[in-house]
Amino acid sequence: MPHINVDENLPGIRSLMAFSPGTATPMGDLANLLLRSDEGLSRADREMIAAHVSYLNDCFYCHQSHGAIAVCYLEGNDELVEQVKKDYTNADISDKLKSLLAIAGSVQKGGKYVTPEQIEQARALGASDKDIHDTVLIAAAFCMFNRYVDGLAANTPTDLSTYPLRAKQIAERGYGNYVFSSKQPVP
Amino acid sequence: MPHINVDENLPGIRSLMAFSPGTATPMGDLANLLLRSDEGLSRADREMIAAHVSYLNDCFYCHQSHGAIAVCYLEGNDELVEQVKKDYTNADISDKLKSLLAIAGSVQKGGKYVTPEQIEQARALGASDKDIHDTVLIAAAFCMFNRYVDGLAANTPTDLSTYPLRAKQIAERGYGNYVFSSKQPVP
Repeated sequence: MPHINVDENLPGIRSLMAFSPGTATPMGDLANLLLRSDEGLSRADREMIAAHVSYLNDCFYCHQSHGAIAVCYLEGNDELVEQVKKDYTNADISDKLKSLLAIAGSVQKGGKYVTPEQIEQARALGASDKDIHDTVLIAAAFCMFNRYVDGLAANTPTDLSTYPLRAKQIAERGYGNYVFSSKQPVP
Repeated sequence: MPHINVDENLPGIRSLMAFSPGTATPMGDLANLLLRSDEGLSRADREMIAAHVSYLNDCFYCHQSHGAIAVCYLEGNDELVEQVKKDYTNADISDKLKSLLAIAGSVQKGGKYVTPEQIEQARALGASDKDIHDTVLIAAAFCMFNRYVDGLAANTPTDLSTYPLRAKQIAERGYGNYVFSSKQPVP
């Protein structure tokens, strides 16, 4: 049961954003900017970083949601996304993305866990300043989103079939105010 | 030295926001909404929650900056703010604020560390749903801001005299785009 009185027909962060529409606007804007850009990192890369960090933070709602969105961008390859979430080192992704996921994993523990060696490794594999910046900020932002959802014990749908439906909407239309404007009981 | 190429004349998060003005806008908006409201929690309460979480995350730049802003709202009572950062249980603050700082401390560890007992305790001491919501989101947001600053190894001024100067500007004018629009070498 959520810690505060939110609309029980809305799942996860959507119920919190409906409770607090003022703060929902910049949070949705930040999600759109970080996750729906194809400059440097692809949308699939960005969602996989978000899903991996959410998995490390044990936020079921967020890693299911963002994993499902990554799957939309990867033509249904849910096995790849599951592997990136749980053990990206053996996943069939580029070495560059692996080096960025290593940085994201350090950020999840705390900013000071990122090492100069991790940064050098990412650069040697082709990461730009913007790639590194975006990776750190995506990982940091999901340390916020995950804590917002679980810190208020937001409702988390356990029916896994609902996540792909919602993921398709997000992949097509984006985050932003839309995250709390729709009342259908899908995540 | 910062991990990416940022303006070395700008300290902390301001150098990162100048590097990425697009994402700076919603981050500044979120800071204004969470820290400059007097609805329920006071501005001083909000900045003390931010400073305490930043202290727990060992983010020197953020706990110095937000501690100094809290001092502005508390008529220069820097001893109180230092105590709240380091050991609020013995600070001269209300039991309600102590109960909210306990929730913020749990959020810092992870969303699932917040317990129903902590929520009940805060409610018994007069906390509203909005107070609890804002406490959780301030704590979660500083888990983002702290990781952004330290995850990219942003410059952190060690001259403590610079923080109160900058704090006064923020207390008077707010966050938002202002955080990266000024070029003076103050935090």
